[in-house]
Amino acid sequence: MNAEIITIGDELLIGQVINTNQAYIAEQLNNAGIYCDRMTTVGDTADVIIDAFSAAFKRADVVCVTGGLGPTHDDITKKMVCEFFNTALVIHNETLEHIKALALQRNIAMIQSNVDQALVPASCTVIPNTVGTAPGMMFEQNGKYFFVMPGVPFEMKGMVDSWIVPFLMKKNTVSVVRHRTLKTTGIGESMLANEIGDINEVIGTDGTTTLAFLPNPMGTKLRITVKETSEDAALVKLQHAENVLRTKAEKYIYSSDEKDLEDIIGILLKEQSLKLTTAESCTGGLLANRITNVSGSSEYFLGGYVVYQNRLKIEELGVPEKLILDHGAVSKEVAEAMASGARMSAQADIALSTTGIAGPSGGTPQKPVGLCWIGYSDASSTFAMKFNFGDNRLRFKERATQAALEMMRRKLLKMQH
Amino acid sequence: MNAEIITIGDELLIGQVINTNQAYIAEQLNNAGIYCDRMTTVGDTADVIIDAFSAAFKRADVVCVTGGLGPTHDDITKKMVCEFFNTALVIHNETLEHIKALALQRNIAMIQSNVDQALVPASCTVIPNTVGTAPGMMFEQNGKYFFVMPGVPFEMKGMVDSWIVPFLMKKNTVSVVRHRTLKTTGIGESMLANEIGDINEVIGTDGTTTLAFLPNPMGTKLRITVKETSEDAALVKLQHAENVLRTKAEKYIYSSDEKDLEDIIGILLKEQSLKLTTAESCTGGLLANRITNVSGSSEYFLGGYVVYQNRLKIEELGVPEKLILDHGAVSKEVAEAMASGARMSAQADIALSTTGIAGPSGGTPQKPVGLCWIGYSDASSTFAMKFNFGDNRLRFKERATQAALEMMRRKLLKMQH
Repeated sequence: MNAEIITIGDELLIGQVINTNQAYIAEQLNNAGIYCDRMTTVGDTADVIIDAFSAAFKRADVVCVTGGLGPTHDDITKKMVCEFFNTALVIHNETLEHIKALALQRNIAMIQSNVDQALVPASCTVIPNTVGTAPGMMFEQNGKYFFVMPGVPFEMKGMVDSWIVPFLMKKNTVSVVRHRTLKTTGIGESMLANEIGDINEVIGTDGTTTLAFLPNPMGTKLRITVKETSEDAALVKLQHAENVLRTKAEKYIYSSDEKDLEDIIGILLKEQSLKLTTAESCTGGLLANRITNVSGSSEYFLGGYVVYQNRLKIEELGVPEKLILDHGAVSKEVAEAMASGARMSAQADIALSTTGIAGPSGGTPQKPVGLCWIGYSDASSTFAMKFNFGDNRLRFKERATQAALEMMRRKLLKMQH
Repeated sequence: MNAEIITIGDELLIGQVINTNQAYIAEQLNNAGIYCDRMTTVGDTADVIIDAFSAAFKRADVVCVTGGLGPTHDDITKKMVCEFFNTALVIHNETLEHIKALALQRNIAMIQSNVDQALVPASCTVIPNTVGTAPGMMFEQNGKYFFVMPGVPFEMKGMVDSWIVPFLMKKNTVSVVRHRTLKTTGIGESMLANEIGDINEVIGTDGTTTLAFLPNPMGTKLRITVKETSEDAALVKLQHAENVLRTKAEKYIYSSDEKDLEDIIGILLKEQSLKLTTAESCTGGLLANRITNVSGSSEYFLGGYVVYQNRLKIEELGVPEKLILDHGAVSKEVAEAMASGARMSAQADIALSTTGIAGPSGGTPQKPVGLCWIGYSDASSTFAMKFNFGDNRLRFKERATQAALEMMRRKLLKMQH
């Protein structure tokens, strides 16, 4: 089975909203063994929508459509679906009752546009929307399936996870596609490719396995994909490829199961019963934020300090004023003093610190924009490392937090830096 | 002039990478008066790429392609472009020199894959890549333009901003498309539509103006679009629509120029010469992170406290232990004590605090997952407000920080809550 995804909305075509829906749907379909060949985005324009429906439903076994089901005047998808399937809108009573119950629960008045959301094409199967008001729809034609969902991401996700994927997994039993992604950091894409060398040693030559390099500011992902006739056969090939890659680049690989670096350090800290704190200047809270994005992080994260002003570095962390005067706030000495000071202050086992020049302004020839010192402190050692993370402020913050977490990962695993 | 965007990469089709490139390109083209009709994403597969090139270049005046120009084996776009335009690869000397200089500057060895990046189709115009190694390409045919760029976002952005948009603005002088977006928060989409009432009062009936409602967890954006023959005419109509919307929903509108709430409060704090601090429990650093994403925030942001553990709430912020024992850490009393304590501790004029249950676990019937108290303190008043931000951890953190910043905005503007 192959699929196409159509996302509808002028906001996508003018670039105001980033299309996260198509990635989510593709990923879930893919895990169910259904490969997405093509994604198309069109506006809230009648003839272009019909053209996209028609082209996709000709090529693909499964078409997933999102967007344009809302209660406002610019939402025309439902009308276009009726035209495409030659059917008319009727009130769906269960949906109407659900909308009324939601309004009651949220203590808001029912208005006409809420009632209109219960209108659905007569020939569709309704996909319930448990977290919102706009129902989803499924049409079946000659063994092909056409799904229509709202564009609000969490409403769409509810339908994909609890209805569409289970439905399609029952219909699709031919082939199994499995991926595994090894996430690396601290090495560039070209150099990593060079370390890995001959690709065929990794993926073999029978055409069932592929390897992709996916660089981003956090590092490069190595994605292995296997298409096989059974789950077991696919897993054997994934494991072989992973093993070969690990012999060549083990040091840089921090995850093989889609976990982020903050998840990985959380597992290590829990295993070793260690408590963490952070002292951030240039990363401004992003490091603590990433750490606390992990559910259960309160088990190992005590809290952190965002010390933008030098006075707070001195008062909250006990950084000696003389260090700042002698070396500047962005220095090895201050990074180390921030880390050891935060560790004492929070009574933690480990502290990470960041101090740098995130830019875009504020650099000097000696200390250019992008310069960053990252400090680490535990009971037996305190040190800092120097980096340059470039002149884009948000990318600087991302890269600095990634490097800080990676420093700690290698330390917790007793690896060399 | 109309455009289509083609993004190439298996990582997009399996949903591993979210497609931010197409949104960026569309937005920049749009600002140059070139409307994007359609976006297509295809994999690293020869015949599908050629098919997408051919369909798009038939329909559109401008085609922008990104992805698949990297140095690794899975990058086939350059080969496909040669086939489509019936040309062959030749070494481009300036690009080769540029790559050598970059390698020298970054102190890395030149390997063969770096040299291969200097190969370009003989019949193209090369678009320089100032921040990376893969050059871009432009083909002109019958007054239509076909651009090819790398998929690495900041390399693509450099080419769009400094080469492609200026080039196209010289060619396109027919129509002007202008947008303005009013960002709202603190009111749902349906209720906002209801407050606004008859759309024609906002956009008129001559067909030149449209209004879209774009909901997301941070609030609902109202996007006004005007297509006109001149910049001046477009601006007059945008201003009229904004004025009407403001008479109906002023309280909820925090921005009309794409600024985020953290930008807006930064401007207000600077104007009023006030210093800010934060005391975060459930938002775990995201509030400080958002505030410090703004360049220049060190002028008004002193720093902040991430106090996950109760001991740190007591020691760093002076929250009385008895308050926590009597009311629990998630309570009005503790939110207020955190805010006033942080304000004292950091010697700030204003402090914001957050304490809540971000989930997905940890709720009780009295204090369910999603519950959040947000505190505010300045020299003349300290108070806290109660919210429920739902059971998705990351969305909870986003919504809680948005509500905290909005509380401060209304306070700074002396508006009612």
